[in-house]
Amino acid sequence: MHRTYSLRNQRAPTASELQNPPPPPSSTKNKFFGRGGLAYSFRKNAAGSFGPELSRKLNTLVKMEKNVLRSLEMVANERREAAKQLSVWGLENDDDVSDITDKLGVLIYEISELDDQFIDRYDQYRLTIKSIRDIEGSVQPSRDRKAKLADKIAYLKYKDPQSPKLEVLEQELVRAEAESLVAEAQLSNITRSKLRAAFNYQFDSIIEHSEKLALIAGYGKAMLELLDDSPVTPGETRPAYDGYEASKQIIMDAEGALNNWTLDSAQVKPTLSFRSDYYDEEEEEEELPEEEEEEEEELPEQHEVEEDEHYEEEPVVVA
Amino acid sequence: MHRTYSLRNQRAPTASELQNPPPPPSSTKNKFFGRGGLAYSFRKNAAGSFGPELSRKLNTLVKMEKNVLRSLEMVANERREAAKQLSVWGLENDDDVSDITDKLGVLIYEISELDDQFIDRYDQYRLTIKSIRDIEGSVQPSRDRKAKLADKIAYLKYKDPQSPKLEVLEQELVRAEAESLVAEAQLSNITRSKLRAAFNYQFDSIIEHSEKLALIAGYGKAMLELLDDSPVTPGETRPAYDGYEASKQIIMDAEGALNNWTLDSAQVKPTLSFRSDYYDEEEEEEELPEEEEEEEEELPEQHEVEEDEHYEEEPVVVA
Repeated sequence: MHRTYSLRNQRAPTASELQNPPPPPSSTKNKFFGRGGLAYSFRKNAAGSFGPELSRKLNTLVKMEKNVLRSLEMVANERREAAKQLSVWGLENDDDVSDITDKLGVLIYEISELDDQFIDRYDQYRLTIKSIRDIEGSVQPSRDRKAKLADKIAYLKYKDPQSPKLEVLEQELVRAEAESLVAEAQLSNITRSKLRAAFNYQFDSIIEHSEKLALIAGYGKAMLELLDDSPVTPGETRPAYDGYEASKQIIMDAEGALNNWTLDSAQVKPTLSFRSDYYDEEEEEEELPEEEEEEEEELPEQHEVEEDEHYEEEPVVVA
Repeated sequence: MHRTYSLRNQRAPTASELQNPPPPPSSTKNKFFGRGGLAYSFRKNAAGSFGPELSRKLNTLVKMEKNVLRSLEMVANERREAAKQLSVWGLENDDDVSDITDKLGVLIYEISELDDQFIDRYDQYRLTIKSIRDIEGSVQPSRDRKAKLADKIAYLKYKDPQSPKLEVLEQELVRAEAESLVAEAQLSNITRSKLRAAFNYQFDSIIEHSEKLALIAGYGKAMLELLDDSPVTPGETRPAYDGYEASKQIIMDAEGALNNWTLDSAQVKPTLSFRSDYYDEEEEEEELPEEEEEEEEELPEQHEVEEDEHYEEEPVVVA
């Protein structure tokens, strides 16, 4: 599904692309430097080659996320430098350019600070994924032990079906299966709860980071309004700049808006073509509350049926 | 102003920090690797040491923005890899985890694609700043020539006040001053118009990028709702996963929302404590339209006064 999505070569232009057509590809893009150097690829490749089989793929993901974090950190640091440099350049210009570049620098510096906060949050997501990797790694030995015992029993049954060892081994296998059953249930539960927690955390962080950045950009645009760009003729001087109060006010407003932002006040909301608090996606939107209650009554039944089914199938599940 | 803002050591916690306290600093942060390697610092330092004096500071900024772009590109590439790896890992898990990680991968891959578009736009901002640097560089010779002529005249006046060369040089100075006057006016006009254009472009791109990311994160959260994380007891099987239709629908909704997004439909709006289409920030919000017209009548007068002032001061400005 991912591939069919990502490998579509020609997409229809989006509404905002029609509104203002996309620029040519960035001149800084480079097939050699777009990837983080040696350390990045070493980290990635090593993760997929060592450790318990079961956890290798997730281990690679954890390392890749570390690369993402490192790169995000570089963006934050470079942007912070650029913000300072903008202010330094502005200082040598006229009052209006000087004040406005300085204030724009403050706003862009704030973006870097937010990037920094986002990095800390993103790392929490990574650590949660890491804990799934750890449980995967810890389940591996119990799977291995069970498989080894089953092999041994099959071998003995073929070679020496009367061996007294066979009984001992079969009892051991029953114990190993019980242990494995618990381990697999733990894996199943922890994988799901951690996966949900990790991505909920990541998405919440993205929402906060994005909305705050959009706010800053909005205030930045207001700041630019203060810059009088009407052309002057040679020898004419510009009217004196009187935007100091206004530019300071914009910074203070921006600071206030950022300080008051909470996840509950988030503006950007996805619109789903069905209700999101459902289990049965076929249910109609216009259904009445009573019907919903019926639906809920139905669900436990369904569940029981499945549980019955599974008790029959149990040996298959354990094997 | 920037320093007092950025060097404030202790900030009051923001509303969202109170709602959920910030995590500890990311464990991947590193004082050695947070900066882009040799190439980054070389680019930055070289830019400030060569070329016309006047354009060095802005040249440094242009190079710093190139570093920002390179780092952004690394983030996009690493994130794209991570999205694929998430899907690869999920494939070995149960149906529900497999489908949901695959779809989350699609959403995160889309974030990378948007990062890529943002990079192209950010580069347009950088190129616009670059054109200010170029005009700065081209104004330098005319300033130098004027200064050199003035020096020569001062020297001759002291050494040989009757020299016939003096008159020629003074005529040359008048011409140089005229040329310089034009050059400075061009610099003043172009700096302002390009600065506004560059940052308006950057901020528009940030708004688009941010809102789209926030949208994707919202759909990601809806996707996570499909993952049943209620714990199972050992030996129990989970109810069969039936979210394929819903997860596909979420992707399609997300795609639709991204395609239909335009700058006009942006949700996050800054709130300013004064009107932004003003020149006089003291004007009251509750003023009547008639008053506004008076305000406008006032403005040209003010302008004329300032122009008068400048005509008196003209020699000072030209020197």
